[in-house]
Amino acid sequence: MAKRLNVGMLGYGFMGRTHSNAYRRVTNFFDVPFEPVLKVAFGLEKKEAKAFADTWGYESHCTDWREVIDRDDIDIVDICTPNFTHAEIAIAAAEAGKMIVCEKPLALNGDQARTMVDAVEKAGVANFVSFNYRRVPALTLAKHLIDEGRLGKIFHYRAVFLQDWTISPDVPQGGMATWRLDVKAAGSGVTGDLLAHCIDTAMWHNGPITRVNAMTETFVKERMHAETGKKEPVGIDDACTFFCRFENGSLGNFESTRYARGHKALYTFEINGEHASIWWDLHDLNRLEFFDHRDEGKLRGWRSIHVTDHGGEHPYMDHWWVPGLVIGYEHTFVHQLADFLLGVESGEPAQPDFRCALATSRVCDAVLESAKAGQWVDVPSD
Amino acid sequence: MAKRLNVGMLGYGFMGRTHSNAYRRVTNFFDVPFEPVLKVAFGLEKKEAKAFADTWGYESHCTDWREVIDRDDIDIVDICTPNFTHAEIAIAAAEAGKMIVCEKPLALNGDQARTMVDAVEKAGVANFVSFNYRRVPALTLAKHLIDEGRLGKIFHYRAVFLQDWTISPDVPQGGMATWRLDVKAAGSGVTGDLLAHCIDTAMWHNGPITRVNAMTETFVKERMHAETGKKEPVGIDDACTFFCRFENGSLGNFESTRYARGHKALYTFEINGEHASIWWDLHDLNRLEFFDHRDEGKLRGWRSIHVTDHGGEHPYMDHWWVPGLVIGYEHTFVHQLADFLLGVESGEPAQPDFRCALATSRVCDAVLESAKAGQWVDVPSD
Amino acid sequence: MAKRLNVGMLGYGFMGRTHSNAYRRVTNFFDVPFEPVLKVAFGLEKKEAKAFADTWGYESHCTDWREVIDRDDIDIVDICTPNFTHAEIAIAAAEAGKMIVCEKPLALNGDQARTMVDAVEKAGVANFVSFNYRRVPALTLAKHLIDEGRLGKIFHYRAVFLQDWTISPDVPQGGMATWRLDVKAAGSGVTGDLLAHCIDTAMWHNGPITRVNAMTETFVKERMHAETGKKEPVGIDDACTFFCRFENGSLGNFESTRYARGHKALYTFEINGEHASIWWDLHDLNRLEFFDHRDEGKLRGWRSIHVTDHGGEHPYMDHWWVPGLVIGYEHTFVHQLADFLLGVESGEPAQPDFRCALATSRVCDAVLESAKAGQWVDVPSD
Amino acid sequence: MAKRLNVGMLGYGFMGRTHSNAYRRVTNFFDVPFEPVLKVAFGLEKKEAKAFADTWGYESHCTDWREVIDRDDIDIVDICTPNFTHAEIAIAAAEAGKMIVCEKPLALNGDQARTMVDAVEKAGVANFVSFNYRRVPALTLAKHLIDEGRLGKIFHYRAVFLQDWTISPDVPQGGMATWRLDVKAAGSGVTGDLLAHCIDTAMWHNGPITRVNAMTETFVKERMHAETGKKEPVGIDDACTFFCRFENGSLGNFESTRYARGHKALYTFEINGEHASIWWDLHDLNRLEFFDHRDEGKLRGWRSIHVTDHGGEHPYMDHWWVPGLVIGYEHTFVHQLADFLLGVESGEPAQPDFRCALATSRVCDAVLESAKAGQWVDVPSD
Repeated sequence: MAKRLNVGMLGYGFMGRTHSNAYRRVTNFFDVPFEPVLKVAFGLEKKEAKAFADTWGYESHCTDWREVIDRDDIDIVDICTPNFTHAEIAIAAAEAGKMIVCEKPLALNGDQARTMVDAVEKAGVANFVSFNYRRVPALTLAKHLIDEGRLGKIFHYRAVFLQDWTISPDVPQGGMATWRLDVKAAGSGVTGDLLAHCIDTAMWHNGPITRVNAMTETFVKERMHAETGKKEPVGIDDACTFFCRFENGSLGNFESTRYARGHKALYTFEINGEHASIWWDLHDLNRLEFFDHRDEGKLRGWRSIHVTDHGGEHPYMDHWWVPGLVIGYEHTFVHQLADFLLGVESGEPAQPDFRCALATSRVCDAVLESAKAGQWVDVPSD
Repeated sequence: MAKRLNVGMLGYGFMGRTHSNAYRRVTNFFDVPFEPVLKVAFGLEKKEAKAFADTWGYESHCTDWREVIDRDDIDIVDICTPNFTHAEIAIAAAEAGKMIVCEKPLALNGDQARTMVDAVEKAGVANFVSFNYRRVPALTLAKHLIDEGRLGKIFHYRAVFLQDWTISPDVPQGGMATWRLDVKAAGSGVTGDLLAHCIDTAMWHNGPITRVNAMTETFVKERMHAETGKKEPVGIDDACTFFCRFENGSLGNFESTRYARGHKALYTFEINGEHASIWWDLHDLNRLEFFDHRDEGKLRGWRSIHVTDHGGEHPYMDHWWVPGLVIGYEHTFVHQLADFLLGVESGEPAQPDFRCALATSRVCDAVLESAKAGQWVDVPSD
Repeated sequence: MAKRLNVGMLGYGFMGRTHSNAYRRVTNFFDVPFEPVLKVAFGLEKKEAKAFADTWGYESHCTDWREVIDRDDIDIVDICTPNFTHAEIAIAAAEAGKMIVCEKPLALNGDQARTMVDAVEKAGVANFVSFNYRRVPALTLAKHLIDEGRLGKIFHYRAVFLQDWTISPDVPQGGMATWRLDVKAAGSGVTGDLLAHCIDTAMWHNGPITRVNAMTETFVKERMHAETGKKEPVGIDDACTFFCRFENGSLGNFESTRYARGHKALYTFEINGEHASIWWDLHDLNRLEFFDHRDEGKLRGWRSIHVTDHGGEHPYMDHWWVPGLVIGYEHTFVHQLADFLLGVESGEPAQPDFRCALATSRVCDAVLESAKAGQWVDVPSD
Repeated sequence: MAKRLNVGMLGYGFMGRTHSNAYRRVTNFFDVPFEPVLKVAFGLEKKEAKAFADTWGYESHCTDWREVIDRDDIDIVDICTPNFTHAEIAIAAAEAGKMIVCEKPLALNGDQARTMVDAVEKAGVANFVSFNYRRVPALTLAKHLIDEGRLGKIFHYRAVFLQDWTISPDVPQGGMATWRLDVKAAGSGVTGDLLAHCIDTAMWHNGPITRVNAMTETFVKERMHAETGKKEPVGIDDACTFFCRFENGSLGNFESTRYARGHKALYTFEINGEHASIWWDLHDLNRLEFFDHRDEGKLRGWRSIHVTDHGGEHPYMDHWWVPGLVIGYEHTFVHQLADFLLGVESGEPAQPDFRCALATSRVCDAVLESAKAGQWVDVPSD
């Protein structure tokens, strides 16, 4: 019988919901060695914290995150609070011996991330960062294809993450709903929020990035702050483009913006190898596009693979419905939780852990530094 | 505070899972007046019934469905057993005063469905049939557009439901996994299993079908029966095509088969009106394609609407994540459960109820009769 | 050096242009044994005939088609006049010993087509019917794939040809621009104009059609006649749907209408076999969609083949540009002319000739008869 | 009646064919004030020059381009020879008072292009550079939409031009077929060959580019030279990525490579404005994708505009067939020739002329310089 795993959830926003949903669903669909028990939900506002706890079935709620960490009965601390709080909480949780799941980006910057890595490694606690897109079945399938060598030598990797929700200058910064536009809370703009996803996937697929050259822009220079009600300078990057070199000799091209009309969450990536290429788009996440030059000449074409097969053909899909019936966004959080729990049991930690996410933070830092300096910047290794 | 709603689940197959999932999730995402409590799960095989109950958190399990109906504490009976059992169970449940949710097709045929309608109407119990695709947000949006008159006079409605899983003659009939190929358990083949969905959506969108003309085929004439181990004649329709007339004067064209390579669950429909047309495909269920001739001439084109917006723009989507992030197949069952519960509370029953589903059964009967007779058949009205 | 081939063109409408273009381009792109010389263009209106001749470089023009046939120096008569004139002209041309290219449909009906077949066969003249879509490279590739047996046993063939240009009741019938709506000039509506294409392709791909069951509709019952200026009853079929049986046991489903908003010329077909399926759409005619179940499981998907490769990979494409660069609609007429000329030289006539097109006429007749009778009709064989 | 325009064609390769085709077709489809007469075709190899002249109907051929320029009866010189010859020929032709059409890129570099601009402007001769993609109807439509202000303030412009034909190290450099891989003949690799197209379109759509930052790579370092038969270092850029600033404040991102498996000629661009976005792909050149945020909320989506309408809706399309029927690649050359001839007649020269193309050369130079220097480079203005 599965062991009970007592969960302390920090944060009741968008990510608090996706993580809570994962804890509630994982045993319905996966055979995992732990039965999550939702013990306590933390949030700054008492009323909202209570409502959140009620909705998701947490036994209790609180408005001081240290209470969660201080409780002996909590096994795992799940950090879904704004970026600027991650480091302090994670280090305290590590010191208290808790397993930690942390939302991305891991920290405000690489140096801060480094202190978190040190803390979890010193404490020897299980740790994981929620780059959830790795667990889209199509992206996991892509990883398998690359690892099987089907693409041959890699020449190019390109990715974009395009949104359009901040074009109006009337969107505020700061506060509960828009802290992602406040540089003090978020650390950066699209680089940490969106490109971090692209970079994580890219390095998982294609290995380390060694050098970057970037350009950023802040289109709206001032926005009202949701807490002060005053116009304040905008400190984040609204848009960021960079090209780079991977350690394997391939070239990268990345772009993110929140000023691309028509794209709500257009995360696409493409990888071009000597033999084959792969393309994917978050908007239609159940499809993987694959082109194999070794197919018979007259029949070569991009294959639109509907990644919903069973019998082990398509990652994770045996756990859901029947071929042809799609899953959605939140399933990626269920998958990563299942993998995390299996990793805890097996002793082979699921990835990305904090150390892995640190490497992504280092790339983000290099990107922002390059944009500021207007020149190439080497990515430091830890 | 929400009232408790004690659930008795009948069946632990594919549909047992989708319905159980809906009961477990609905209060996480919707503000409904009932809190489902999973009391008991019925299934013929004790071991499987227990495993199912454990996975989904049912308090108990049993191997006699009458036990469920006999329990005073059960408020709702959910019928996910093979088609041939629906009528007997539903009538007993109605007589016991239970609310009833029944998987589609409602019955083996229209006459049987009629007895079920009579039973629930006599008992005055809430009743609902799980034509779940009505609650795909894109299809609900389509319904709104049609009801707003945006298409003008309707000329054409066409739909297909194409699969490819029974092409091999080695697929058996009968038993737990393949009862849908056994005419005694299923009543018919693609007509009741797949076209019933198309017909339900079509009549919801476009009004009653009055006459049909059909052709069916059984490509594989004999299959081993999973229970007897013997080759037996196949009694179901492997493929069915029909054209028809709607009461509003428009023409319909429907086709379903399980012999269309490359299509796992290609349910598509298109409706063509004087001003506008709509197209949709289950494989990419978050998109609705819309063409409006009244758009400015040079900019006319099919719009690919990613039905994931918030703020009330797109049905049901306020309850999930953020724009651009998709939902999947099982969400439709959550939506219909929420609507059903709200309908129970408000007194305006959610549709399709048994009476509504009876009309679909009548069309299916007419289709099968037409195919047999090789001529037009009028659809009877109840 | 290529022999001169003196061309007499009948008709200066849409088809007169596509055929003239073919004569003028064929030697630029294909190595054919004849050099077409544009001798004379016939058209009823003198001014238009002269303008047409000037534009396309015909040496002369006339307003009596018999003059063309009477000229000894004319080698080939190309019939691009309205349907009702085909038979009389073609028979006269055959008797005069001319080669004949005739636009589709061959005649107003099968019996008339039969007289034309008899005439050309008696005269022993080269004859060809312009079902030009056979020479879309993607469709020719499809034919090769089918003939190579890649699809295995065929289960289904379905095709639609959807347009939206006659929805307004203000579109007249008759006259130069809209004779296709006048039953006396056209013989039928969408059946002869659009479904004839679908049927020709289908029988080429999948063999004879043996029985049909059809439904037709005329949505707009009266239209002004462009010549008389008076409202007259509309005699054509605005929409036609039929299902059928092929000789090889597969099922067909065909639909055509001019009342499908959003579709200018949506001719699509799909063929489903035991192993593989093929799909194509005229709107994007350079692509062929192909699904092969024998592909490795996890990589199965519809391949979007951009049919523009060289080196013999893709039919006809060696004659045009470089891979990736598309051709358009009119190229199909160049291809069929090249094939026709090569067939004349080699003695293996290009298809479809008159006899082949007669079979399509017979199916069209059966479709219209079935719609009228409301029952299955056998397709007669000649 | 149209004046005769005597054409001297230089080059019989791929571009010699596309230009010859345009001269032969333009009067069939456009009402232009000149009737092109194909007088002479030049090519280095006598036999090939003769065959080319025969195929296309040139009255004569020669193997010395100066003969063409020296002929008094030649009105227009059309330069389709390799890049390194453009300047010398164009300057001689200008001095001889000929109209000049020149293939792109205009020259090996900006300084050379500058001498050509000076020559044609001094001579006062009509001049034009064949950036043919401007005359894809979809791209012309895009230009109209941008000029009408429908996009509002522009934030982003991104384009790629991806091919896959040089991945094998066995592809040689130099010679007739592969001079584009020889830096001495081509000047650069993908930058001049492919990105020049993207840059021309981008500046036409979105105004001047002021600064660039680039990265290039040569994946295959040595290739056999087709003329010497010896392995020689490869001097061209196999891949080039750059980001940039436009004068209007928007950000650009451009990438080209010949190492992207699955892409034969994937030229796509996207422009994102405050209100609307546009996307296009050369592989399916008859479609323009358009998203307008000002569309009604629930109906917002990317519109796939099939740019084949008549009645003036879609640029150039009135001259071809009927709605829904597509044109191909070579039609762009017919369009630009028609526009050029109309410009000669009207006195308002069609664009891009040499001066306009010079600006593109300057950007290409800056890109290559930036890649070499590893830093931002300002684009000089002339």
